[in-house]
Amino acid sequence: MHGEPATTFQLTLPDWLAEFACAPPVCADDDARIAFAIELARRNVEHGTNGPFGAAVFDGAGQLVSVGVNQVVAQRCSLAHAEILALALAQRKLQRFRLNGDGGHYTLATSAQPCCQCFGALIWAGIDVLLIGARGEDVEALTEFDEGPLPADWIAKLQRRGIRVQRDLRREESREVLREYTRRGGARY
Amino acid sequence: MHGEPATTFQLTLPDWLAEFACAPPVCADDDARIAFAIELARRNVEHGTNGPFGAAVFDGAGQLVSVGVNQVVAQRCSLAHAEILALALAQRKLQRFRLNGDGGHYTLATSAQPCCQCFGALIWAGIDVLLIGARGEDVEALTEFDEGPLPADWIAKLQRRGIRVQRDLRREESREVLREYTRRGGARY
Repeated sequence: MHGEPATTFQLTLPDWLAEFACAPPVCADDDARIAFAIELARRNVEHGTNGPFGAAVFDGAGQLVSVGVNQVVAQRCSLAHAEILALALAQRKLQRFRLNGDGGHYTLATSAQPCCQCFGALIWAGIDVLLIGARGEDVEALTEFDEGPLPADWIAKLQRRGIRVQRDLRREESREVLREYTRRGGARY
Repeated sequence: MHGEPATTFQLTLPDWLAEFACAPPVCADDDARIAFAIELARRNVEHGTNGPFGAAVFDGAGQLVSVGVNQVVAQRCSLAHAEILALALAQRKLQRFRLNGDGGHYTLATSAQPCCQCFGALIWAGIDVLLIGARGEDVEALTEFDEGPLPADWIAKLQRRGIRVQRDLRREESREVLREYTRRGGARY
C-alpha cells in the first residue's frame, strides 16, 4: 500500500464542543432540539473551515445523547458529516448499533436536510424522529454543497420505516447560517 | 448525557486482516479486484458474527489501498459496512477527503451491491469505478439484510457523476458467500 497500512480511523468532535459533552442540556420539544442543532452549525461556521451543519441525538426525555458538526475538511474524511458524527457517537455511548434497539425513542435533529449519505445512514441507525431545519434546495442555493441523489419520495420512504419526519423547523434561521458560511468564503476560507 | 460523554469514535479492521495491510497485493484487472473483495467477505463469514460483505479500494495501477469488512455487530456501529471502512481507511491513508482529488484513479470493489448508506457515501468519496459482485436482490433473497431505499436509477446516477459501474462480477461466487452466512445462522450465530 501507499505509506503506512491503515487499519483504523477515528473521528473526533472539535474541542469547542466539550462544553456540551460536560453539561448536556435537556431540550423538551422539537423546537428546542432544532434550535440546538442550528446553534451547533452556527458555531461550526464561526470556528473554522468545515461545512455549516450541526446535528444532535436526543432520547425520549429530550436529554442530549450526542452532538455532531461537519468535520470533512479538518479530518480529511468525506464521512464526517454532522449527522454521521452524531449517530456514531450516540451508538458508541449507548453501546449498540441500533439506537432504539432497547425499545427507547430517539430523535435526530439536523440543521439542514440530510444528503444522500446521511439519508442512508440514518435508516440503519435506529432513530424514531428526524427533525430538519433548512431544505436541500436551501443548501444548494446558498452554499457550494450538493445534496446528492435521494429517492424522489425520500420522506415517504423514511415514514414507511417508522421514522417521523418534520422539516422547515426554524428554516430561516438555518438558512442564515448557510448564508454566513458563504459570506465568509465557503470552503475556501 | 448517559454515562461518559462520547467525543470520539473509531472503527478498526479485525486482526485477521493484518496480513493484507502488511503485504498488499496488486490486482491487475476488474476480475482480480472483485475476487479479492469476495475473498474478504468469505473470510469475514468464517471469522465471526458480522455481515458477509467485503470491499477494497485500488489505485490506478491496481495496487491495494485499503480493505474493509462488515463490522456492525462487533463494533456496535451501523456505519461499519465494508465499503465505509474501505473508503474511510483509504482517505486516512492518502490524507484527503476526496480520493481522486489528486487526479488519480480509484476503484472500489465490493462483494455485494452497496446499500443506501454506502451508495450515498461512495458518491462523496472520490472514486472512479465501482465493481459489484452480488446484486441487492441476491442479498435480500439469501440473507436477512435489507438494501434500503436507493434511487430507482441508481446506476445512472453514479455514471452521471463520473463513476463507472460494473456489476454481476463473479456474482455466483458472492452469492455462495451469502448462502454460507445464512447456513451458519446469519446474525444470530
